[in-house]
Amino acid sequence: LKKGEKTAIIGVGLLGGSLALALKKNGDHPVGWNHRASSRKKAEKILPVAASPEAAVRNAGVVVLSAHSGSILPALERMLPWLEPGALVLDVSSVKGRLVRKAEKIPSLARHYVPCHPMTGKEKSGPDHAEAGLFRGKTVFITPLSRNPAALVRRASSFWKKVGGLPVVLPASAHDRAVALTSHLPHLLASAFMHLCGKDRTASKVFRKAVGPGFKDFTRIAAGNPDMWRDIVEMNAAEIRGFLRAYRKILDSMGRNLQQGRGPYWSAFFQKAKILREKIR
Amino acid sequence: LKKGEKTAIIGVGLLGGSLALALKKNGDHPVGWNHRASSRKKAEKILPVAASPEAAVRNAGVVVLSAHSGSILPALERMLPWLEPGALVLDVSSVKGRLVRKAEKIPSLARHYVPCHPMTGKEKSGPDHAEAGLFRGKTVFITPLSRNPAALVRRASSFWKKVGGLPVVLPASAHDRAVALTSHLPHLLASAFMHLCGKDRTASKVFRKAVGPGFKDFTRIAAGNPDMWRDIVEMNAAEIRGFLRAYRKILDSMGRNLQQGRGPYWSAFFQKAKILREKIR
Repeated sequence: LKKGEKTAIIGVGLLGGSLALALKKNGDHPVGWNHRASSRKKAEKILPVAASPEAAVRNAGVVVLSAHSGSILPALERMLPWLEPGALVLDVSSVKGRLVRKAEKIPSLARHYVPCHPMTGKEKSGPDHAEAGLFRGKTVFITPLSRNPAALVRRASSFWKKVGGLPVVLPASAHDRAVALTSHLPHLLASAFMHLCGKDRTASKVFRKAVGPGFKDFTRIAAGNPDMWRDIVEMNAAEIRGFLRAYRKILDSMGRNLQQGRGPYWSAFFQKAKILREKIR
Repeated sequence: LKKGEKTAIIGVGLLGGSLALALKKNGDHPVGWNHRASSRKKAEKILPVAASPEAAVRNAGVVVLSAHSGSILPALERMLPWLEPGALVLDVSSVKGRLVRKAEKIPSLARHYVPCHPMTGKEKSGPDHAEAGLFRGKTVFITPLSRNPAALVRRASSFWKKVGGLPVVLPASAHDRAVALTSHLPHLLASAFMHLCGKDRTASKVFRKAVGPGFKDFTRIAAGNPDMWRDIVEMNAAEIRGFLRAYRKILDSMGRNLQQGRGPYWSAFFQKAKILREKIR
């Protein structure tokens, strides 16, 4: 990465805004763009906002596309004519397989676009919640296109290291499988649980008093951005379905054992869960 | 509660130990007892340990039985002959209905025993993790026996207020239903999810790198004490099963919608989950 080269952030939300703060801390001068005028106003508190998306992208050495999974490809196609030769384009979206398969069909993209997914975020969205440290110590998955030049992928890695991320290069399919299990399924399960709680119960006084820290931890992710999650579920449905099916089988066996009231089954069940959980720091 | 009266804590683990610390901060001098010699040794770091359970309970104005749901009633029956007239006995166990039904059959218990459940804890057990503030601002459910004198229930309330708790009196059945939904089902769901992750995946490098803060929050409760949770599941199985059945229906509908890939369904689904979650502070 060249010192002082222009970085454009298209989509200054929680991630884009945090990236801007991290880059500024690093002495860089990123330029931003948001589609909506109201979001541009918010973004202006963090970084200079360009006069148009074209103006933001022109002359940029690095362009970060911080948008939901469903809008990456249209945005890429639109900006292609504006890119400098050698400009690196990154995204931050959570599902990579379908995006990579579509991007492979536009050969000129491989000279610019390296698909990325930083494993970070929080349940609040928008640039008002941005934090310079959001990427620090966090895995950033990079799922290259088959025709990405090796040097371009290395530049993508260097970019994420600059803001504290830990880049990991892997195939898009392995990525989508891993996040379906570790991120997408939990989000669905926590959301489904909130629906169960919502059957008039969240209004009850007893329910509210019975909510402890365990409940709050377990359900925190259900407050994520609904549009982002709709895109994720649509784009990674097959992987998520496979894990959901396996999960339901475990619930079926739990249901049978609840009926039969077998102490030794439950001791072993909870013991194993505890051991598995304690492997995760 | 009389100033300076003796408080006995039978079972100095996380909760019992935290109670001892809170009482000491309050100027009280609790006395403890643990069944196992090794646990008595740990307890001695926090409070004086009696020579026997009988010695701990004798002359005590308040006895707190800090044991798992399954061992409360045998312990109560054993200590009954040792109790002072007017001694108040409390427990801290998570399921109340079955315990209350059994306790109602021993008429002399109602002069002493007021069933309680403080909504607090953490995933680490044992007195080494005790904290004086563990009860501060936390709901303490009190599910009285039908023949508990009103003054005895008031003394139980005062006791919990003294350590910062917020007592709420309600029927055992309403309590068990509320905690089945807010605490017991989430624990089962998070544990089942760890089992799914355990199918060789927790060892994989990609899995480990794909674990983010959302995963950790969602699964934290799965590290709870297995013996405590076995007792809970056995004693509240009927309520938990009802909610598990309703939850599986939601998963069934999710599965169908994953297959059909309906964007509007998922937008509405996540939107509603977010609104419900944000009602919980």
